[in-house]
Amino acid sequence: MPELRRDPVVGRWIIIDHSKGPTDFPKDDNTPTRQAICPFCPGREVRTPPEIDAIRAYGSTPDTPGWQVRTVPNKFPVLTAQDALEKHGNGIYDEMTGVGAHEVMIECPDHEKTLTDLTSEEMGMVISQYQRRYRQLSKVDHFKYVVIFKNFGSSAGATVEHTHSQIIALPMVPKTVTEELKGAEHYHQIHGRCVFCDMIAQEYNDKERLVAENNSFLAFCPYAPRYAFETWIIPKAHFADFGQIDQKTQGHLSQILQDVLQKIKKVLDNPSYNYYLHTAPVEYSNPSAYHWHMEIIPKLTRSVGFEWGTGLHIVPTFPQEAARFLREA
Amino acid sequence: MPELRRDPVVGRWIIIDHSKGPTDFPKDDNTPTRQAICPFCPGREVRTPPEIDAIRAYGSTPDTPGWQVRTVPNKFPVLTAQDALEKHGNGIYDEMTGVGAHEVMIECPDHEKTLTDLTSEEMGMVISQYQRRYRQLSKVDHFKYVVIFKNFGSSAGATVEHTHSQIIALPMVPKTVTEELKGAEHYHQIHGRCVFCDMIAQEYNDKERLVAENNSFLAFCPYAPRYAFETWIIPKAHFADFGQIDQKTQGHLSQILQDVLQKIKKVLDNPSYNYYLHTAPVEYSNPSAYHWHMEIIPKLTRSVGFEWGTGLHIVPTFPQEAARFLREA
Repeated sequence: MPELRRDPVVGRWIIIDHSKGPTDFPKDDNTPTRQAICPFCPGREVRTPPEIDAIRAYGSTPDTPGWQVRTVPNKFPVLTAQDALEKHGNGIYDEMTGVGAHEVMIECPDHEKTLTDLTSEEMGMVISQYQRRYRQLSKVDHFKYVVIFKNFGSSAGATVEHTHSQIIALPMVPKTVTEELKGAEHYHQIHGRCVFCDMIAQEYNDKERLVAENNSFLAFCPYAPRYAFETWIIPKAHFADFGQIDQKTQGHLSQILQDVLQKIKKVLDNPSYNYYLHTAPVEYSNPSAYHWHMEIIPKLTRSVGFEWGTGLHIVPTFPQEAARFLREA
Repeated sequence: MPELRRDPVVGRWIIIDHSKGPTDFPKDDNTPTRQAICPFCPGREVRTPPEIDAIRAYGSTPDTPGWQVRTVPNKFPVLTAQDALEKHGNGIYDEMTGVGAHEVMIECPDHEKTLTDLTSEEMGMVISQYQRRYRQLSKVDHFKYVVIFKNFGSSAGATVEHTHSQIIALPMVPKTVTEELKGAEHYHQIHGRCVFCDMIAQEYNDKERLVAENNSFLAFCPYAPRYAFETWIIPKAHFADFGQIDQKTQGHLSQILQDVLQKIKKVLDNPSYNYYLHTAPVEYSNPSAYHWHMEIIPKLTRSVGFEWGTGLHIVPTFPQEAARFLREA
C-alpha cells in the first residue's frame, strides 16, 4: 500500500511504496579508467586554468605536481566574475547579469581513487578545502550564496571521472534553499525552535531511519525523501553556517561523509550520486531558525520528467528500509 | 555571457546561456518497434485491467478491439482507491494513506503511430478523453487534484512505447502547482490581474519567444525556462480550469498541441519529452488568479542532480533562440 508523506520543512508531499530494494535499480559502471586523457591528473596542470587554491607539498610551485587537493576555475563556467552585476526589469520579468564564480576542486591526485578510497587525513583535506573556498567566496561583493556540490558518475552528471567537487557562487539564493529558509523560519516563528533540531530529536527517538553517527553528526534517511536511499548528514549542534564549524567538527564531518559514501557504495554497488551542502546564505539574519546539512542522493532512477513538472516525487523505497540496509552495511 | 532570469510566477531564478543549439544534445531513438509484445495493442485487451472509459466503434464491446482511445487502470498504480483516506501525525511529520487513482490512456490503436501521426480528428479524441477523465475524477470524494501527463520516449520515463498518457488523481495538491497558485494569487492581490494574462500580453508584445498560435491558444518558450526548448501552451482567454473548456476550444488545443509536438520532433530529431497540464485544483476558490496551461519539456539533458538539489536550473539555450527554431520549423 503506498503512503503519502509530507516534509516538515518545505511542505512537499511525496508518494512512497515498497516496490524497490537496493538491487532493483539499473547499474552504472563507475570505475575510473580514462587516465590517459585526464586534464585533472598531476603533470597536466596546464590543461586547467591557473589554480586558485591548493593543499600542496611545502615549497612546491602552483600549477605543478605536489598537490593533494587543487582548486581551479571551471574551464566552462556557468557564471563568471568578469562583469559588473546589473539588474534589469523587462516588463513582468526580472534579469541579472551572470556574475558569480564557478570553481572545480580536484579532491586527490590519484586518478583511480574516489572519496571512499582516501585516507582519513586526505578526506579531511577535502572538507578543509571546502570550508576555505566557502569562506573566501562568501566574502566577495555581490555573492549571496555559495553552493558546494559533487556529481559522481556519469548518470549524476560528472563529465570528468577524476574525483572532484564543484563550487558555485551566486548573486542570489537558489530556490530550494529559499524554500527551506522560509519553511524553517515559519516553524521557528510558531514553535520558537529549529525544525531541524526537532527532526534530529525525533530521528533519535524513532531510530529506524538512522544510518550512522559520530560525536558531532547524525546521518539518516529523511522521513519524506524525494529519492530512494536519499541520506542527510546533519550536525547535532545547532549551526546555521557551514563556514563557522571548527577543525575538530570538520574532522567528524569528513569521517561520517566517508562512512556514508562507503555504505552507499556497498549497498547500491558503486552507484552514481550527487551531494550538496545546504547552509545559510551569506549574512543571514536569522541563524537560530536554520541548520546547515548535507544531502546525498544516489542517482538510481533515470527519468524524472513527471516529478519535474509536478513536484510530486514517487519514491520506490521506504526510508526505514533504505536506512536499515545502509546501517547494516 | 550567461544571464540570470526570474520566473514571475514562482520566483525561481535560472542561469541561461548560448552554449547549445538544437543539434548539440544526445539523441534518443524513439521509433516504436516492439509491437510483438505490446500489452496496449488491439487484441491484447486482456493484458490490461478492464477498461474504465473508451472512445470506440458504436456497438463494440469493452475490452475488445474497436476502440480509438482507451483508458484503463495502471497495472502498477502509484495510488489506488481501495482504502479509506486516513491522515496521521507522526511527531513533526505528516502522513496520509495512498488514496487516489492512476489511469493509463492509450491514445490510438496503431502501435507505430505517435501523437504527431494522428489525424486531427484522432488527436481531438485524445483531448476529449483527457477532459472526460479529468471531469470524472474531479468529482470523486477526497480527490483534490488531477494530473494529466505524458512521458514520450525512454529518456522521459516511458516504459511502454505504444503511445499513451497517464492520469493521476491525488488527495492533495502537488508542490509545483501549490507554488504556482501562491505566486499567481500574490500577483493578483497586488495588481488585480492574472499574472499569466500579463505574460500572454508581454509575449505578444515581445514576439521573439512565440512558437505558434491559433484562435484560442498561444504557444511560447517561457522567459525563464527550466529546460532547453521548454514550451508552454496557454489559452488566450482567462480560464482557471481545464475541465471547463468547450468542444471548440478542445479542438484548438488539439491542433496547437499537435503543431508544437511536430515542431519539436522536427527541430530536435524526435526527442523524448514530457508534458503535463497545470490546472486549478478541484473546487478552487480563486479562479480569477489562476490560468490553466500545458508545459512541454523535451528531455535533452540527462543529468540534473545539481538542479534537483538546489532548484538552480542551468539552461543551455536562450528561449528566443529555441522559439525561433520551433517557429520556423
